[in-house]
Amino acid sequence: MGRRTARVPSTRLDLATGAVVRRPDTVAVEEPLEIRVGEASLTTTMRTPGDDFDLTLGHLVTEGLVHDGAEVRGLMHCTDTGPDGSPTFNVVDVTLAPGATLHGPPRERAETMTSACGICGTASIDAIRLAARFAVAADPTTLDPAVVASLPERLHAEQATFDRTGGVHGAALFTAAGELLVAREDVGRHNAVDKVIGWAVRERRLPLAGTVLAVSARASFEIVQKALMAGIPAVVAVSAPSSLAVALATETGMTLVAFTRPPRLVVYAGEHRLTS
Amino acid sequence: MGRRTARVPSTRLDLATGAVVRRPDTVAVEEPLEIRVGEASLTTTMRTPGDDFDLTLGHLVTEGLVHDGAEVRGLMHCTDTGPDGSPTFNVVDVTLAPGATLHGPPRERAETMTSACGICGTASIDAIRLAARFAVAADPTTLDPAVVASLPERLHAEQATFDRTGGVHGAALFTAAGELLVAREDVGRHNAVDKVIGWAVRERRLPLAGTVLAVSARASFEIVQKALMAGIPAVVAVSAPSSLAVALATETGMTLVAFTRPPRLVVYAGEHRLTS
Repeated sequence: MGRRTARVPSTRLDLATGAVVRRPDTVAVEEPLEIRVGEASLTTTMRTPGDDFDLTLGHLVTEGLVHDGAEVRGLMHCTDTGPDGSPTFNVVDVTLAPGATLHGPPRERAETMTSACGICGTASIDAIRLAARFAVAADPTTLDPAVVASLPERLHAEQATFDRTGGVHGAALFTAAGELLVAREDVGRHNAVDKVIGWAVRERRLPLAGTVLAVSARASFEIVQKALMAGIPAVVAVSAPSSLAVALATETGMTLVAFTRPPRLVVYAGEHRLTS
Repeated sequence: MGRRTARVPSTRLDLATGAVVRRPDTVAVEEPLEIRVGEASLTTTMRTPGDDFDLTLGHLVTEGLVHDGAEVRGLMHCTDTGPDGSPTFNVVDVTLAPGATLHGPPRERAETMTSACGICGTASIDAIRLAARFAVAADPTTLDPAVVASLPERLHAEQATFDRTGGVHGAALFTAAGELLVAREDVGRHNAVDKVIGWAVRERRLPLAGTVLAVSARASFEIVQKALMAGIPAVVAVSAPSSLAVALATETGMTLVAFTRPPRLVVYAGEHRLTS
């Protein structure tokens, strides 16, 4: 398994005291991971090594290319050696189950190329939205605001790499009652979410009804969409939401909480799930 | 021009006092921008509207697809109406200059497919690194650490959208003496950098010798690579660097400063440019 942190030379300056300290510093490892399906290269993402199979499974499911773990027969790391002679693990080869093929990106509406302008003519959200297999609006889960408010701190408590580097995002899945199911870190915030969802794919837990996804950063469209593709009815973010994240959560009946900073939090969608 | 902020309903809970306040909140707008060159769709990025032409130019140059502004004859917004009847501006059409064609991605080394594993067999950094046209190592710029330390706060002072939403990243270009050249914001940190560099492309300022790129967030591989493609000899980040950002800056002779929190900062590469 690749390293999650690395030591690099650094020089710390304190302009107030004039102190100059040269010493090795610990940084988060960022390396490319190429995902291949059969013979074809699907994508390359910059990620922190570790949980590469979960990252791959999560990516395939949240992009709508694979529906569940049963469609994947196996995952294999290509091993080779890097410049320093140590093994690298920067390619995952996916073998689909017999008879399975990648599903096309399941767009919410067929792209209508009525002009030379491509996605002109469709509402922007429709142009990029994937059709979800699960109806989170129908998920009857209720959430205690006090539990919701506690999730970012509980995610943070799981972020060992962040504590050492300050350089990674975190994502975690909790039950509605606040039980931690899984937490993951990555230099890419989408990757952290894919690792969490990939864990659930591998554990055959989809759809993730009755769960909450907590993220250490902002709630963007893609984070909400990934939750939707996994059937997660609630997303809780430490920082701000984007306009399109609010729009997608509202439209699909997902609960979206942001600026979660106890004792305060802000609900942007799906307030009906919060008990008072 | 599209809106940079939007008003959405929100419910603010304060669990300490029990206060519940329902009111419109201001969030950063996130919308897809499709970049087309001629008839072909090149990429779609999630961005905050505004400076779309600079974003496009910056993307083309930092991906090595276009060398400078002279290769672009024109940029055009496709306008159409969104679901509420107001115009959207979510496609930019690029027309290349007569005789110009997109350059292929200029990989640092030819990809050698000696195994079924794709980028196995090449060092990971080589597999993803673009060949830069400018040698930042030869840039004799020197930097006063006190000026460097002041840049994040000066970038922050330009971040009007962040102040209203908490939801955007910022990037700014300064001269080595600390003069602000341009500052931009975006929900995507790569986009903020592309907007800054695209401004410089449009102003025919490449290579950006003698300048410093300040970013509000972390320094990842792609941020350093974008600076490199524009000939910027120094990157200053508020937050952490990644391992690959440090490696690329070190290898190319770029100055990389991170955790820039006055009076302290940490130099990860190119310390020779800092005056003592």
